[in-house]
Amino acid sequence: MAYTEDISSVIAQASQELSQINIARPEAVSRPGLKEQIVRFLTLIRSAMYPKIFGSDLNDPKRMKMTISSNLQQAAVLLNEMIEDVLRGEGDADGLTAQFIGSIVDITNVLETDIKAAYDGDPAARSEEEIMLAYPAFEAISIFRLAHKLYELRVPLLPRMMTEYAHKITGIDIHPGATIGEYFFIDHGTGVVIGETCTIGRHVKLYQGVTLGAKSFETDENGNPVKGIKRHPDIGNHVVIYAGATILGGNTRIGDNCVIGGNVWLTHSVGEGETVYYNKGDTN
Amino acid sequence: MAYTEDISSVIAQASQELSQINIARPEAVSRPGLKEQIVRFLTLIRSAMYPKIFGSDLNDPKRMKMTISSNLQQAAVLLNEMIEDVLRGEGDADGLTAQFIGSIVDITNVLETDIKAAYDGDPAARSEEEIMLAYPAFEAISIFRLAHKLYELRVPLLPRMMTEYAHKITGIDIHPGATIGEYFFIDHGTGVVIGETCTIGRHVKLYQGVTLGAKSFETDENGNPVKGIKRHPDIGNHVVIYAGATILGGNTRIGDNCVIGGNVWLTHSVGEGETVYYNKGDTN
Amino acid sequence: MAYTEDISSVIAQASQELSQINIARPEAVSRPGLKEQIVRFLTLIRSAMYPKIFGSDLNDPKRMKMTISSNLQQAAVLLNEMIEDVLRGEGDADGLTAQFIGSIVDITNVLETDIKAAYDGDPAARSEEEIMLAYPAFEAISIFRLAHKLYELRVPLLPRMMTEYAHKITGIDIHPGATIGEYFFIDHGTGVVIGETCTIGRHVKLYQGVTLGAKSFETDENGNPVKGIKRHPDIGNHVVIYAGATILGGNTRIGDNCVIGGNVWLTHSVGEGETVYYNKGDTN
Amino acid sequence: MAYTEDISSVIAQASQELSQINIARPEAVSRPGLKEQIVRFLTLIRSAMYPKIFGSDLNDPKRMKMTISSNLQQAAVLLNEMIEDVLRGEGDADGLTAQFIGSIVDITNVLETDIKAAYDGDPAARSEEEIMLAYPAFEAISIFRLAHKLYELRVPLLPRMMTEYAHKITGIDIHPGATIGEYFFIDHGTGVVIGETCTIGRHVKLYQGVTLGAKSFETDENGNPVKGIKRHPDIGNHVVIYAGATILGGNTRIGDNCVIGGNVWLTHSVGEGETVYYNKGDTN
Amino acid sequence: MAYTEDISSVIAQASQELSQINIARPEAVSRPGLKEQIVRFLTLIRSAMYPKIFGSDLNDPKRMKMTISSNLQQAAVLLNEMIEDVLRGEGDADGLTAQFIGSIVDITNVLETDIKAAYDGDPAARSEEEIMLAYPAFEAISIFRLAHKLYELRVPLLPRMMTEYAHKITGIDIHPGATIGEYFFIDHGTGVVIGETCTIGRHVKLYQGVTLGAKSFETDENGNPVKGIKRHPDIGNHVVIYAGATILGGNTRIGDNCVIGGNVWLTHSVGEGETVYYNKGDTN
Amino acid sequence: MAYTEDISSVIAQASQELSQINIARPEAVSRPGLKEQIVRFLTLIRSAMYPKIFGSDLNDPKRMKMTISSNLQQAAVLLNEMIEDVLRGEGDADGLTAQFIGSIVDITNVLETDIKAAYDGDPAARSEEEIMLAYPAFEAISIFRLAHKLYELRVPLLPRMMTEYAHKITGIDIHPGATIGEYFFIDHGTGVVIGETCTIGRHVKLYQGVTLGAKSFETDENGNPVKGIKRHPDIGNHVVIYAGATILGGNTRIGDNCVIGGNVWLTHSVGEGETVYYNKGDTN
Repeated sequence: MAYTEDISSVIAQASQELSQINIARPEAVSRPGLKEQIVRFLTLIRSAMYPKIFGSDLNDPKRMKMTISSNLQQAAVLLNEMIEDVLRGEGDADGLTAQFIGSIVDITNVLETDIKAAYDGDPAARSEEEIMLAYPAFEAISIFRLAHKLYELRVPLLPRMMTEYAHKITGIDIHPGATIGEYFFIDHGTGVVIGETCTIGRHVKLYQGVTLGAKSFETDENGNPVKGIKRHPDIGNHVVIYAGATILGGNTRIGDNCVIGGNVWLTHSVGEGETVYYNKGDTN
Repeated sequence: MAYTEDISSVIAQASQELSQINIARPEAVSRPGLKEQIVRFLTLIRSAMYPKIFGSDLNDPKRMKMTISSNLQQAAVLLNEMIEDVLRGEGDADGLTAQFIGSIVDITNVLETDIKAAYDGDPAARSEEEIMLAYPAFEAISIFRLAHKLYELRVPLLPRMMTEYAHKITGIDIHPGATIGEYFFIDHGTGVVIGETCTIGRHVKLYQGVTLGAKSFETDENGNPVKGIKRHPDIGNHVVIYAGATILGGNTRIGDNCVIGGNVWLTHSVGEGETVYYNKGDTN
Repeated sequence: MAYTEDISSVIAQASQELSQINIARPEAVSRPGLKEQIVRFLTLIRSAMYPKIFGSDLNDPKRMKMTISSNLQQAAVLLNEMIEDVLRGEGDADGLTAQFIGSIVDITNVLETDIKAAYDGDPAARSEEEIMLAYPAFEAISIFRLAHKLYELRVPLLPRMMTEYAHKITGIDIHPGATIGEYFFIDHGTGVVIGETCTIGRHVKLYQGVTLGAKSFETDENGNPVKGIKRHPDIGNHVVIYAGATILGGNTRIGDNCVIGGNVWLTHSVGEGETVYYNKGDTN
Repeated sequence: MAYTEDISSVIAQASQELSQINIARPEAVSRPGLKEQIVRFLTLIRSAMYPKIFGSDLNDPKRMKMTISSNLQQAAVLLNEMIEDVLRGEGDADGLTAQFIGSIVDITNVLETDIKAAYDGDPAARSEEEIMLAYPAFEAISIFRLAHKLYELRVPLLPRMMTEYAHKITGIDIHPGATIGEYFFIDHGTGVVIGETCTIGRHVKLYQGVTLGAKSFETDENGNPVKGIKRHPDIGNHVVIYAGATILGGNTRIGDNCVIGGNVWLTHSVGEGETVYYNKGDTN
Repeated sequence: MAYTEDISSVIAQASQELSQINIARPEAVSRPGLKEQIVRFLTLIRSAMYPKIFGSDLNDPKRMKMTISSNLQQAAVLLNEMIEDVLRGEGDADGLTAQFIGSIVDITNVLETDIKAAYDGDPAARSEEEIMLAYPAFEAISIFRLAHKLYELRVPLLPRMMTEYAHKITGIDIHPGATIGEYFFIDHGTGVVIGETCTIGRHVKLYQGVTLGAKSFETDENGNPVKGIKRHPDIGNHVVIYAGATILGGNTRIGDNCVIGGNVWLTHSVGEGETVYYNKGDTN
Repeated sequence: MAYTEDISSVIAQASQELSQINIARPEAVSRPGLKEQIVRFLTLIRSAMYPKIFGSDLNDPKRMKMTISSNLQQAAVLLNEMIEDVLRGEGDADGLTAQFIGSIVDITNVLETDIKAAYDGDPAARSEEEIMLAYPAFEAISIFRLAHKLYELRVPLLPRMMTEYAHKITGIDIHPGATIGEYFFIDHGTGVVIGETCTIGRHVKLYQGVTLGAKSFETDENGNPVKGIKRHPDIGNHVVIYAGATILGGNTRIGDNCVIGGNVWLTHSVGEGETVYYNKGDTN
């Protein structure tokens, strides 16, 4: 059998079957291009928030304001369009867009505290400029704080896609539902996971590989995880959690001023000011 | 010494020496552009499999079929070209291409079970749409299953480059040689490593940071790892392995219905239905 | 209140406040576009070093030399421009550029040993070609060695931005200040962190998730990490460190020929030739 | 008045008025992106017709056929989409697409005669390759013949947009409604205009600046040109028309084997085999 | 002499001499990138004026207004930047920008009359949509009217670069200094030239190849054309000028309601209502 | 008959026939991508010649020289590759490349005289900067002078493709074989045609629509134009030729200091210092 005849008939049959599979998919499947729109929106909104880093070098205050305003407007148009899309006609896209844009200054102010926390918390940090240019934590946390606002406004799909984009480029996976206080810092960050119902206080520092997750074995009678309940821990203020530590469960609470050592595995609460460390690993 | 004279002579000398180094490289070094072709191929083939996600929003069944067929054909042309390249004239590129395209529907059907597993296994998943749009596990597993087919067909280099691309964008590193059953899910995923000779059953769920790797110390008389032997564990059906667990060794088998706790480190087999947990980490 | 009036006034007010926040930022904030220049520089310089992998398939020695020379020259122009930028007029950008280009052949020669180490150290590696095309370790280590040279030349900001780019695409986070010997290999690599003051000998192999970090609790009287001191461990020659191991502290030294097992957590030195393993994790 | 206040209010007012103007436009205004689709379609269809010129260098007959088929399929998908768009639901887009694709071989065969005419008719032509790569006539005539087929199929808007694209890149303006025989050649071509109801025989050669247009003064009682009638001349077989000649009117017929000199202005018919030349321009 | 030595020394010497030539150029040479900025500005401003043609298909009035406003703002930022550039600090870039934006609605209203003139004046025009999508006259005249406003505001360089861009894509060369009334249409258009000091009334129609130029021989004592005086003709209202006609000289005036035939060459004035035609070109 | 069956079989059959047509084409058909390489080469080489216009704004002499050298080197590599391609292994690509690069400074010096001629010859020209940024004549003549050098070196195909690119973007069609002296200027330029065997002296100025072409009726016994002989006119020094003039024939010579009026049609020689004008076109 000649090649092109063979491959042509294979393609024809596969096309037929793939069509049937895809026609049968539920109609709710979302618009293609959404991923690209998410990335473009995040660039625009952060260019408005940090024009010197994401946009152009603007020494002239007048031109800076024009540029910020232009970027905000483009971001608003794009967000409005995406929200209408994911709401599929049910909900007030205009009002949600306005509320989101209205919260940008507050989000920027909170991010200023995160930049300060990075500078204070990392001996290797040379300047705030370096943090904004080269720290994955700044990428991940700035995207999280924007996504969290949309999550609060109950916009579907978009918040999760935003934090998943941050996950992809930083290895830091923060669910947009998490509640995180000011002065938050994550050093290195690869492998960090912060779950949907987690709450984190002010002045908290995490290292790479920290998991704030759901407790094992919380399954229903069918062996599936239970949905819609508090599943992730609460972390107090001024807490440091070192690399690879795993803290699990909706009833687990780490008190203020605690220090959790590297690779520690915790499924119970820890009182205020305590230090938990991992002291095994002897030489044989 | 003036700058441009200096830098010019430095460049001239470095060019001379780099040329000699590169001329001496073995001729087998592959074509540049291959990485970009891999990415384009994966986009085309997945646009044929998931036209609503990767391609365009196709409500018209006729146009959907035309688009799927067009994308499959482009993917086949590209794959045929890449296989000819890496085979360097030795082997049946046409037959291999036809066999690969002929397996696409089966691969798609298996991926349907993986999407279902993600939806059932993650309390935070809102819809199958969200899984296809925002879950790194879907990216990693869909690319793995395609690469695995090429690995089975003994196509060199391409399978590994495909899964390494998935590793790069998801942090999930699955060797294309691994054998993985239906209904497979990885939550969060950053840091997961699954080795070449690993076998995984049906309905298995992994969390971030899980390693299914080669046992330490399996070295030959020269201190190098031994090649070409069974080096990675076997995982049964309906197994859950929590974040950071490490399971090592070609003789290690985890039986059906086991649960392996977070951060557990295992180098021996575990019988059916058992639960292994990590219970250290006390407060001092 | 009509939508567009609402959103327009929200945008106007947010623009006003964001302008004030950004005008108040210190003038030292760096040029936008620097990230893109970094990526372009790394492509050019590595195209000069590995023309068959990053550039074009050059069988003609004469054309290869022309291409290498052309790429080196472009890289030099771009590097010169970036250094002038970050030095802000204070320093000898020309001399630094010449010194960097003058070291390229040495760096290439060291990277040859790293490629050999990967081939020898991974049973799954089929060819050196596969290592250069598909191994994240090659991406991360080649970028690190280039960045380290700039770090030695005391060029600010750029070295860190380079290794952070490598971190982003590989999940391997090596500070440009680290000192690393020949024949270095990292398998899989996601989650690896190597600190600024770390030293690593020859023939060292790391697995995914290894941290060579600062010891916990090294803080000053204000609770902040102490800056500018030796904070990270020293690793001898011919050492293997398995997945997830954590080695911390500036006084911690791992002797030659040691093997550190997976998930081990070490804050004290280990003598020559010893093996440290993790032996917990029993079945309940 | 401060700048940004001023410009902001100017923008606000202009936006308001431009919105009203555009909302009032008739709904028939076509989709944006159509121009880009036209260009992409012309590239795809001509890559199928001339794979060595527009596509890739295909020495392998099998791969050539795969590539042609793939490009044709993509072209068909795109054309189908554009036709549905411009038909706005009224008409048989599927049938029209099939008829168009079904005529591609005939169109290619006619273009072969045009390439031969260029080679025979231009002393400066070195090869057929040069004609396909560097002659604006080949661009303009190949696009015209494709557009003319769509015009015959009564597809609205697209044929005119295609020939206008050819006009833009070659300066040759052929209305898609014109009827043009085999072995057609235009030398240099800038400024050539061929009207909608023009007919041209076989073996005709035109030079730059030739107009085959509507006769002056053919206006209705309101002074406007009369629509929908024969307005442009008929040109016989084996006719040569030199640079800058102008031939006007629906009743004007140039017989077989005529030669029309440069800058000649003709509004009446010319019998078979005649030569019309312009003999003015004396030295004073 | 080996190739690379030869070519290297040739490049070195040529670089040296080209540097000296370019260092000696007057400092006034403008910023690179200006051409690209011009094109981007024209796209933005026309997207604000014709959102359905140049931008996106906006059926929602609210979103249309947001989009228009966003495009206008971006256009204003870009124009402001370009004006500051070409003014080199001398002049009121802010005020000029505001005046330009403030005139956009008036320009749009005049262009509405031009679209109407095209529809009424071309028997082949099927819809206003076709004119905006496929008529070079619409491209050329819309760009001219924008450039003319900047010319009136005495902005240097930019107006000429804009009309030269239009010339490049349409073959229609209108100097931005020309004064042109409402209801202006150019059919086909390739080769049309309209000089700087030309004035054109209302309801004028030109065909391809028409020149409204400077009279021959208007040179000073050195044989160079005289600068800064009225050099081009005045055209009245309701005038039609057919293909290839040439009308020259600053004292030449064509009265209202005239018709100028194809290829006519005129250097004297023509009274109201007259018809000038070219009646040569006989058969020999 | 269902649509997709229909269109699929149509595509299959058309692919089959198009494959046969293209397999039958002579092997000499050139590489795809050549057009894009031509454009890239012209950008590089002109960036070396005019770094402030085509490249970046270089105030630092050292960086300017580095940039010029880098662009020249890239241009040389690309030219070398293209020449090898079109020579198909027969000829000295290296020597030709070196000779071309070695002539760049001379070409630049001649172009300086062309820029001066434009400034002196156009009352509307405001600065040399405007000429380089906005005059199609500068585009067309600079590309012609580069292509002419390659024509002199007997490089096939490339010279013609370069001038055809210039034709496309300016409407000015100069054959690369023409011989043109210093201080050459073309005003407006659309429709200008200059033939292969034309010679033009110093200080010549042309206007739009001028043809310096082959005489009509120079055909062989088969009615085809005769190849390889002197076919186009010679133009002396200090000649001005106004818009639309047509001068034809290999024996036609225009003496020094002549002025040829607009629309004049000349097929005989004109003595030194004469003025030829067109004086017809009376009012009826």
